[in-house]
Amino acid sequence: MSLQHTDREYEADLRQLREKLLLMGGQVEEMIRDAVRSMLERDERLAAQVAERDKLVNRGEVEVDELCLRILALRQPTASDLRFVTFALKAVTDVERIGDLAVNITDRVAELSREPPLPLPPELPRMAEAVQRMLRQALDAFVRGDADAAAEVLRQDQGVDDLYREAFQRALGLMRSNPDAVPSATGQLFVAKHLERLADHVTNVAEMVIFMARGTDVRHPGSRTP
Amino acid sequence: MSLQHTDREYEADLRQLREKLLLMGGQVEEMIRDAVRSMLERDERLAAQVAERDKLVNRGEVEVDELCLRILALRQPTASDLRFVTFALKAVTDVERIGDLAVNITDRVAELSREPPLPLPPELPRMAEAVQRMLRQALDAFVRGDADAAAEVLRQDQGVDDLYREAFQRALGLMRSNPDAVPSATGQLFVAKHLERLADHVTNVAEMVIFMARGTDVRHPGSRTP
Repeated sequence: MSLQHTDREYEADLRQLREKLLLMGGQVEEMIRDAVRSMLERDERLAAQVAERDKLVNRGEVEVDELCLRILALRQPTASDLRFVTFALKAVTDVERIGDLAVNITDRVAELSREPPLPLPPELPRMAEAVQRMLRQALDAFVRGDADAAAEVLRQDQGVDDLYREAFQRALGLMRSNPDAVPSATGQLFVAKHLERLADHVTNVAEMVIFMARGTDVRHPGSRTP
Repeated sequence: MSLQHTDREYEADLRQLREKLLLMGGQVEEMIRDAVRSMLERDERLAAQVAERDKLVNRGEVEVDELCLRILALRQPTASDLRFVTFALKAVTDVERIGDLAVNITDRVAELSREPPLPLPPELPRMAEAVQRMLRQALDAFVRGDADAAAEVLRQDQGVDDLYREAFQRALGLMRSNPDAVPSATGQLFVAKHLERLADHVTNVAEMVIFMARGTDVRHPGSRTP
């Protein structure tokens, strides 16, 4: 009876861990969308909301870390549960950094709103949508322990890299042809760079899902003998 | 007798974990130095060496993760040892990303070597030195469990941010006054940005050392009640 009680507590801890990570995922997904929108629409109020929401994400990371430590200390998980808890410890760092990068995107909204407007680069909202979709799929794959769905996320990263290169060339062209465009075009360049790096963090999460589900480390090909 | 034997194996595992992390730290420290040098001196051979050394760092991360999983599964560490192992799981990710960022710095060495040379921005080597020093101090603090030394690393991050802002303004000025300088100045801008982000990863490690040594989470002020 006492053992069953402990089992139920253990299951509840693991479920709570899963839910907390998904909640944080939903929060940063909205932050990505709003950050890019605040930049393109010069909306300083929306930019401030992104920074405000990041505090929740930061608190979420601390809570996930504490929960993982408690599970490791009290429940001494083994096999796939142990892999899941170590996954959570590492993946939460990526989710939290995604939040930081969303805030970074908004950093210069106020400053750039005072510069002459540039034509909106179509790559940026497309990159943002792709990254949001990848993040959602990576966290869905995580909940279901679905390595195939996670592998599909990895394939989408190439599309984001391609959009980044287009945005980069577009910004460079603007700067060359019009020195007054330099500050705004640099701002666009950094947003594109941040979005590309966001996709890399999502990729890290997807790689961990594959490791968790298959026990195969795909992060660094050749580093691990199967 | 059997218990003592297990204790010795446990100590050996922890020592190995510490040594592996320090080894990786030394590797990425050299990578930072060589990456910036390859960019400033237009040395494509040195750039290739940085990418080559990154493979060792990637392998190191996989080894550290596996060692941590083994310790958690077989030794069931508690209290400060448990904090240390979870620290290693998270910190190794930062060290590995520092290696990735060093490689990113070298990414455009070949392309930019074909552009007209620009005056070397003095901020970049100074940023690189500061980041190398911070990384060395953060890992020293980690080995000794020295929270005060880790706190000193956090204070240095401001200096890197200041240098970044100077490099940023310098690059913008070059681009405005001379459209032909746009590709090279953009390259300098990205190197500065990468170095600033490198310093953020070192800061993460230092914050974890403080958490490990004091049991206080300084990452997100206000997120944790003491």
